[in-house]
Amino acid sequence: MTATTIPKPAHPAKLNASPSIDAGTMKALVYRGPGKKALEDHPRPGITAPGDAIVKIWKTTICGTDLHILKGDVPTCQPGRILGHEGVGVIDEVGAAVTAFKPGDRVLISCITACGKCEYCRRGMYSHCTTGGWILGNEIDGTQAEYVRIPHADTSLYPIPQGADEEALVMLSDILPTGFECGVLNGKVAPGSTVAIVGSGPIGLAALLTAQLYSPAEIIMVDLDDNRLEVARTFGATQTVNSKDGKAADAVMAMTGKRGVDTAIEAVGIPATFELCQAIVAPGGTIANIGVHGAKVDLHLERLWSHNIAITTRLVDTVTTAMLLKTVQSKKIDPTRLITDHYELDRILDAYETFGNAAKTKALKVIIET
Amino acid sequence: MTATTIPKPAHPAKLNASPSIDAGTMKALVYRGPGKKALEDHPRPGITAPGDAIVKIWKTTICGTDLHILKGDVPTCQPGRILGHEGVGVIDEVGAAVTAFKPGDRVLISCITACGKCEYCRRGMYSHCTTGGWILGNEIDGTQAEYVRIPHADTSLYPIPQGADEEALVMLSDILPTGFECGVLNGKVAPGSTVAIVGSGPIGLAALLTAQLYSPAEIIMVDLDDNRLEVARTFGATQTVNSKDGKAADAVMAMTGKRGVDTAIEAVGIPATFELCQAIVAPGGTIANIGVHGAKVDLHLERLWSHNIAITTRLVDTVTTAMLLKTVQSKKIDPTRLITDHYELDRILDAYETFGNAAKTKALKVIIET
Amino acid sequence: MTATTIPKPAHPAKLNASPSIDAGTMKALVYRGPGKKALEDHPRPGITAPGDAIVKIWKTTICGTDLHILKGDVPTCQPGRILGHEGVGVIDEVGAAVTAFKPGDRVLISCITACGKCEYCRRGMYSHCTTGGWILGNEIDGTQAEYVRIPHADTSLYPIPQGADEEALVMLSDILPTGFECGVLNGKVAPGSTVAIVGSGPIGLAALLTAQLYSPAEIIMVDLDDNRLEVARTFGATQTVNSKDGKAADAVMAMTGKRGVDTAIEAVGIPATFELCQAIVAPGGTIANIGVHGAKVDLHLERLWSHNIAITTRLVDTVTTAMLLKTVQSKKIDPTRLITDHYELDRILDAYETFGNAAKTKALKVIIET
Amino acid sequence: MTATTIPKPAHPAKLNASPSIDAGTMKALVYRGPGKKALEDHPRPGITAPGDAIVKIWKTTICGTDLHILKGDVPTCQPGRILGHEGVGVIDEVGAAVTAFKPGDRVLISCITACGKCEYCRRGMYSHCTTGGWILGNEIDGTQAEYVRIPHADTSLYPIPQGADEEALVMLSDILPTGFECGVLNGKVAPGSTVAIVGSGPIGLAALLTAQLYSPAEIIMVDLDDNRLEVARTFGATQTVNSKDGKAADAVMAMTGKRGVDTAIEAVGIPATFELCQAIVAPGGTIANIGVHGAKVDLHLERLWSHNIAITTRLVDTVTTAMLLKTVQSKKIDPTRLITDHYELDRILDAYETFGNAAKTKALKVIIET
Repeated sequence: MTATTIPKPAHPAKLNASPSIDAGTMKALVYRGPGKKALEDHPRPGITAPGDAIVKIWKTTICGTDLHILKGDVPTCQPGRILGHEGVGVIDEVGAAVTAFKPGDRVLISCITACGKCEYCRRGMYSHCTTGGWILGNEIDGTQAEYVRIPHADTSLYPIPQGADEEALVMLSDILPTGFECGVLNGKVAPGSTVAIVGSGPIGLAALLTAQLYSPAEIIMVDLDDNRLEVARTFGATQTVNSKDGKAADAVMAMTGKRGVDTAIEAVGIPATFELCQAIVAPGGTIANIGVHGAKVDLHLERLWSHNIAITTRLVDTVTTAMLLKTVQSKKIDPTRLITDHYELDRILDAYETFGNAAKTKALKVIIET
Repeated sequence: MTATTIPKPAHPAKLNASPSIDAGTMKALVYRGPGKKALEDHPRPGITAPGDAIVKIWKTTICGTDLHILKGDVPTCQPGRILGHEGVGVIDEVGAAVTAFKPGDRVLISCITACGKCEYCRRGMYSHCTTGGWILGNEIDGTQAEYVRIPHADTSLYPIPQGADEEALVMLSDILPTGFECGVLNGKVAPGSTVAIVGSGPIGLAALLTAQLYSPAEIIMVDLDDNRLEVARTFGATQTVNSKDGKAADAVMAMTGKRGVDTAIEAVGIPATFELCQAIVAPGGTIANIGVHGAKVDLHLERLWSHNIAITTRLVDTVTTAMLLKTVQSKKIDPTRLITDHYELDRILDAYETFGNAAKTKALKVIIET
Repeated sequence: MTATTIPKPAHPAKLNASPSIDAGTMKALVYRGPGKKALEDHPRPGITAPGDAIVKIWKTTICGTDLHILKGDVPTCQPGRILGHEGVGVIDEVGAAVTAFKPGDRVLISCITACGKCEYCRRGMYSHCTTGGWILGNEIDGTQAEYVRIPHADTSLYPIPQGADEEALVMLSDILPTGFECGVLNGKVAPGSTVAIVGSGPIGLAALLTAQLYSPAEIIMVDLDDNRLEVARTFGATQTVNSKDGKAADAVMAMTGKRGVDTAIEAVGIPATFELCQAIVAPGGTIANIGVHGAKVDLHLERLWSHNIAITTRLVDTVTTAMLLKTVQSKKIDPTRLITDHYELDRILDAYETFGNAAKTKALKVIIET
Repeated sequence: MTATTIPKPAHPAKLNASPSIDAGTMKALVYRGPGKKALEDHPRPGITAPGDAIVKIWKTTICGTDLHILKGDVPTCQPGRILGHEGVGVIDEVGAAVTAFKPGDRVLISCITACGKCEYCRRGMYSHCTTGGWILGNEIDGTQAEYVRIPHADTSLYPIPQGADEEALVMLSDILPTGFECGVLNGKVAPGSTVAIVGSGPIGLAALLTAQLYSPAEIIMVDLDDNRLEVARTFGATQTVNSKDGKAADAVMAMTGKRGVDTAIEAVGIPATFELCQAIVAPGGTIANIGVHGAKVDLHLERLWSHNIAITTRLVDTVTTAMLLKTVQSKKIDPTRLITDHYELDRILDAYETFGNAAKTKALKVIIET
C-alpha cells in the first residue's frame, strides 16, 4: 500500500464472516474512528472458510496507509477494524481446502489477498481479485495483532525459506513489491537508463533499492527533506535534488543534458509531484505512478501528446513476491536498510508515534514484535 | 499527423537549404499566413544534400493538420511553405548518398522523415529524429505540389510493390500508421479484447480498420455524427454510441457489463473525449491517445491510481509502414474505403473546401492527382 | 494434446483417490492395454477432494493422443483408465472448496488440470502444474464417459456463456488452445508476416484457424495429403505445398522470394518435418514446435547459430481458453469447421474407427454425444 | 564474434573497392592462408564510398574468430586480408555522406557494420545487414593495422564519451555485446533467476559480467579449466562446476534442487556443451546459444517437446552498444577485468602467441596498441 487518501477500489467484504468457535482473546490495535485507535483485547480469529489460515504474528509493521485510515480517509475501513496488512508469522491452523501450508509453517503475509481463480488473478492482477485485493486491515481484520485470519491462504501467503532473516521479509509484504511493481517494472527501468524518483520516503526508497536490480546508470532522487536525500545517497542514489526551491525540474533537466529521464517514478501522490514528473520525462519515457492521490491532476497533453510517453498506475499485485524473495536470499538487495525502529506489540502506540512523526524521528519502517 | 492545434515538437529545419540549381517551376499549394492559401507557380526543388531525393508526385491528400496550419495554429510552419506530408510518386533524381532508390522507382512518401542514424531513429522513434520527424509541409516544403524534395530518402521513402494500387498507398503515408501505431499498437489491442474508439473521423476510422488486424471481440465507436457512426458500422464497428446526449460513458459501461473496455482510443483531441476514455477504461486497460490536444486535460488519479492502467501518447513513427504495406497487399485491410473524393491538383482549392466541410460533404480522405 | 508418441511429463497421480461413496454406474470407454479398449459399465466418479467437481458429460471427442495411448506409447496411462480429456457438460456435484461453480452450471473442460497455486500455475504454465497438468484420461479417469471427476475444478473448468454453441466449444478443450499457444503465440505470428504450417491434420488446421486472428500476409500449408491441403485452402491457407516429392523446402523458399518464413509451425512430430522447418525459417524467425516427438532430431547449429532464430516447445497451458472463447463468441473463428463426424457414446468404438482412419474417412474431429 | 568454425552468413563484399588515391603505407597483420600470418607494410585505406570513414587505430585486440580464420575455417576470409574487427581510434577522414563524425572524433568500432537502412537493420538485426554484418577483418580489411576503412560509418561507429577509459571500450566492439545480446538478453536473465553459463572463456566471462546487470540469484559457471573457474568466481559466479568428470549435469541439477536453470547459456560451440544445456534447462527456461558451431547437434525433442522451453541463436547485432557504454560509464560493469595482456602492434605476433595458448598463459583478452 502507498498512501495519501481514499486508497482503494471497492471490494465485497464477503469473506469477513465471524469465526464460529471461540478461540480465546489476543492483543490487537483497533481503529476506533477518525483520530482514534486503541490496543485492545480482542477475540482471536478462527477459520471461517475452507481456504483460510490462521497465522500467529511474529513481526508486523505500520504503513502510511494506516495513518490515512486513522485520519478517516479510507471509507472502506470501518471502526472496530484491526489494522495492519504486513507481517511474518507461523501457521496456527488451516481450513480444509488449504494444501500448501500446515500448522508450524513459517510464512510471509502478502498485503494483497488473491483467490488465484478469478479473471483478474489469472492475469496476475491480484490487486483486483474479485474476492480479495487489499482487504487486510481494511475490509477484514489485519496483522497488528497476535493472530490474523488470512483468506485464500494458499495464494496469499509465502513460505519463508530456511535460514531467512524474518525481519527483512516483513518488507516483502508490501513496501518492496510496491516500489518494484508500481515503480520499477511499470517504469521499465533498464541497464544504462536514467531514473528519477520523486519522493524519498519509505516507498520511494523501496523503489530506489529495487531499481538497482536493473542497473540503471543514474538514479536521481527528489525530496523536500535533506535527511531523506542523504539516506537516499547511502541507498544508491547517484544524484539528489531538494525541490524546496521549486526548481527541481530545471535541476533534473540540467543533470540529464536537457534530455530528461527515461523513467520518472512518482512516489508522493500530490499534483505538484506529478507535475514535476511530466516536466522531466524524456520523449519515449515513462511516468510510473506509485503515489496514492486524493485529487485529480493536470495532464499536459497539449505538450505531451507527441512525446511518445506512457503513464502507468498500479495498486501493487504482489506477483513478484517470490522473485523478490530470491533477490533478498541471494543478497542482491538488503531490505533491512529500510528498518529504523523496533517496538513490542505492547508499545505499538509509541511505534505509531515514532512512525507518524518521521520528519522529526527520521523513522522509515518500524518493526512491531509480538 | 492528427490534428487539433500546435501539433509538433520543435525540429531544426536545417535540411531546408535552397536548391543550388534552377530546376524550373511547378504548381504548388502554398500557405500564405493564417486563413490564406494559394495554388501558385513555385520553383521546382533540387537536391541540397547527398541523402536527398526529388519525387515527382502522382497523388497526394489533405490532412486535418493542414487545416490547423491554415488556422495559424502551427507556429513551426511559416508563410511561404508548400503544404502536404502524404503522397506517392516516382523518383526524379537522387543525391550521391542515396543507395536504395534510383530515378524511375515508384515510391510511397512517409509523413515522417527519419535519418536512421540518431539515437531516436535507432530506437524506432522516427518521430523524434533529431534532423527529421514531421518536417514535410511544416518546416520544409511538402507534397501538395508537382515535385517534392525528401531528405534522408533511403529511410523516409518506401518502394511501391509491383501491382500495388497506388491510390490505396496514399493512406499509408500517415493516416493508417497513425491509427495503427498510436491507437492499436499502443493500445495493445488483442484477440478477444474490447475496444472503444472515441472519434469516428478519418483517424478514428483508420484505427478501426487496423484494429481488426488483431481480431478484438468488440469495437465500440463513439462520435457525435450519426453519418460517421454509420460509416463505422460498415467498416467493422460492432457497436456505436452517439455521445450527443452526454451519456456515452454509461452506454459503453452498459455494453461491457459494467466492466469497461480493455482499450480506449482517443481520436479527437479535446478534454471531453479524454475524460470519456478515463470513465470507460477497465482496470488493467489502456488509454491510447491519438488526438492532438491544444489544452491540458484533467487526469483523475484520485480514482485511477489503483486501476492498473496505462495512458500512452505518440506522434506516429511510421515504423510499421512495411508491415502495413504487407497487410494491404495481402488484402487484410482495404485503405481505399477511406477515400471519398478525387480532384486534380488544379482544383486543390475545391478539394480543401470539400475536406474542410466534412460534416456536410461527408468527405473522409480526398485524393489530389497531379 | 497433440500426438505421436510418449507424450507427457511425469506427474504424480496423487489426486486419483477412489470415491468414498457408491455413485452408481455409467458407460465409459476404458483402455485395456496396448491395442485394447472397451465400452464398459464403470462406477460413477464421486468427489474425493474439496476442490473436485463431478461433470455430467454432454459432448466429448477423440484426440490423436488417445490413439497413442492405445498403441501403448504412453506409459503414464495404465490399463483400466477411462480415456478422453476434452468435452463440455453440466456440473453434477462440487466439493466444499469449489466457489466458482455449482450444480447445474454448464462448463467447458480444459484438457489441462491446474491448481492455480503452484509456482508453475502462477507463471501461467498450467501444463506443468505440480498436482495437475495433463492428467485427465491419462493418470486419472477421463471424459469419454457419462461422468468425469475434475480436480481443481475452479481453475480447470470454464463457464459456458449464455447462447454459446456447446459443440463448438469442445474444440476449446484442447485442439484450439494447442494450435494457438504452441503454434501461433509461441511463433509470434503478426500482421503482415509469413507463416508456414507443416502438417495439415486437425492440430495444424487449428493453428491455421487461430493464426488468422493476427492477420499474417501468407500462410503456407505443407502436408502429404492433397485432401487435407484442399481443406486447408478452404480454412484460409494462402498457398499449399504437397511435400511428397521431397522438395517442399525449395517450394517454400521459392514462394517467399528465397527469404524463408517468419514463423514455421511444426505440427507433425517427426524428424523430417522438423528438418523442413529448419530449412525454411528466415533469419530472425521462429520455429514453433507443436508436434509430439518420439525421437531426437538433428539441429543444424552449424548453419543456424548465426541466424538469430528461436525454437520453442510447449505442452499447451490452456491459459488462452477465455480469450479464445471470446473470439468464438464474436465469430472471429468458427471451430465447428473442424468437426466432421458425430456419434452417440454407445457407438464410440465406431467413432474411434472413423477417427483412426482419417486418411480414408477424411475425418477431422469426431463429436461423441452422451 | 565468437568462434569455432565457418562463422558467418554470406554477405556480398560489395563495399570493398580499392581506394582511388594513394594514402601511403602502414603496418598491418595480414592473413596469408591457413596457418600463415604476417605483420606487413600495407597500403593505407582511403575513402571508397560516401558513407565511409577512415579510423586511425589506437587499440585493438584479437578474437577467437581470428584464430579460426588462421586455421582456414572461415572461407569468406581470403588470403591477403587484414584481420581484426575490434578497436578504438580517432577519425582520420570521412566521406561526403557522413554526418555524425568528423576528423578528430574519438570512436569505438563495432564488429558489425550496419547500413541502418535495410529491412534487417530497421528490425535491429544489424548482424544480417544486407551490405554489412560481420565483414570487418573477414570480407574487407580489418582493425589489426594502423588505419581501417569503416563503411556505413554513421551507423557502425560510436562516439567515445569524454573521460572514458578507451581501453575498456575495446571490449565493447564485440565481446561484451556478444555475451549480453546472445546470452543475457536472449536468455531472458532476470532478477532472482538461476543461470548456468557453459564455457568460462572470454565470451562466457563476458556473459557472466553482463548477466549481473539483471541481478540473477545464481550464476553457475561450467568449464573444464579450474583456472578459468577461479577467474569466474572473482567475476561474480556464485557456483562453479568442473565438467571434466562428465557429471556436470548432475552437479547443476543438485545445485538447483533438481529444478534446473531458468537460463542455460552455451558459450563453447560443440555438441557436448549443447547437450549439457538441454540436460539442465528447467521447464519454462531458455537455452541461449552463443557458441559458433561447426557441426550439427542432437536436439532431444522426444523429451523437450513438452517442456515449454526456448532455444535461441544469434550473431551479435551490437544494438546494445550505446546501452552497454552507459553501464560502463556508470561503473555498473568493469570490462577491463577481461584484459590480461598488452602488446605494441610491432609485437602482434607475440600477442597472437599469448592469446592462442590461453590454457597455459591464462590470457583472456590481449590489447594491441598502435
